[in-house]
Amino acid sequence: MRILGVDPGLTRCGLGVIDVDPRGAARLVFVDVVRTPAKNPLGQRLAYILERFETVLAHHDPQALALERVFAQDNVASVMGTAQVSGVILAAATRASVNVETYTPSEVKAAVTGSGRANKAQVGVMVARALGLTQAPEPADAADALAIALTHARRTPVRSPSRPATQAQRQWQEAESRARAQK
Amino acid sequence: MRILGVDPGLTRCGLGVIDVDPRGAARLVFVDVVRTPAKNPLGQRLAYILERFETVLAHHDPQALALERVFAQDNVASVMGTAQVSGVILAAATRASVNVETYTPSEVKAAVTGSGRANKAQVGVMVARALGLTQAPEPADAADALAIALTHARRTPVRSPSRPATQAQRQWQEAESRARAQK
Repeated sequence: MRILGVDPGLTRCGLGVIDVDPRGAARLVFVDVVRTPAKNPLGQRLAYILERFETVLAHHDPQALALERVFAQDNVASVMGTAQVSGVILAAATRASVNVETYTPSEVKAAVTGSGRANKAQVGVMVARALGLTQAPEPADAADALAIALTHARRTPVRSPSRPATQAQRQWQEAESRARAQK
Repeated sequence: MRILGVDPGLTRCGLGVIDVDPRGAARLVFVDVVRTPAKNPLGQRLAYILERFETVLAHHDPQALALERVFAQDNVASVMGTAQVSGVILAAATRASVNVETYTPSEVKAAVTGSGRANKAQVGVMVARALGLTQAPEPADAADALAIALTHARRTPVRSPSRPATQAQRQWQEAESRARAQK
């Protein structure tokens, strides 16, 4: 299964593509961070992100899109831009008939590190480990996009329900229970 | 000049098209309110609004798009959806090479009623008057979209700078000064 993870942002928007095999093993296919200068008009910034997103969609043809969910209670200065980017991504993915799932930041952290309160560095380390990379993807937006894609991989039910969960899936299920207990 | 005004919203999105002649007289070309049910997936709602917006853009071919500016300090429950819709509209308009201007709610109220604190009913009455309609457009989202378009018409400089301002433009300039003084 091929998954595109998106960490939405106006200044930096992370796009990460992974392939996941039936045993849950993941490999990196593509990762990029789209940047738009703050001095540019808002419409131009959003249209550029849309264009880059559609190029990745067309080139890598993912079966699913995983997007970080935006909250109004986050940093007010950046949340509006993030919401606008996520709107553009959601509309474009739906138009392209790609299924979209959204995950909260704490769900993503729990899925990749085992803790809903992990920091950026921990997320980077665990993303690198899951994808067999020698170091954490840079910048953090790239690692976050891949972490969101990995979250979707671990939350999506295995195709054959009778098959026991893999070790990675069991670890994730335990991590999710712990993260829920922390709420 | 043909102007498309947009009152962005996820549940109801107002789209209003007006034509403005060189003397500043405006007439109604088209108005509609796109509705999406809250039970539908977010991506589907945004994609439907995008589709309807692009249809209006293609059919009426406006020279300018006027959009209400979203603020993070507004009602938190609806502001995220409104921001997502405005992101979709901004990206699509920019892609279609239509110039976009954004106006705050108080700028729109001041431009059409003379007061930045006017209520919905006053806005409806003044929109009807400006467009020569026998009654205010319904629902309020339709009147608001037309009010946003009228705001753009009154704020856009006349093509010949040597020509004196029309009565409507002078009235608007006075209203704007009063609204600024109220802030």
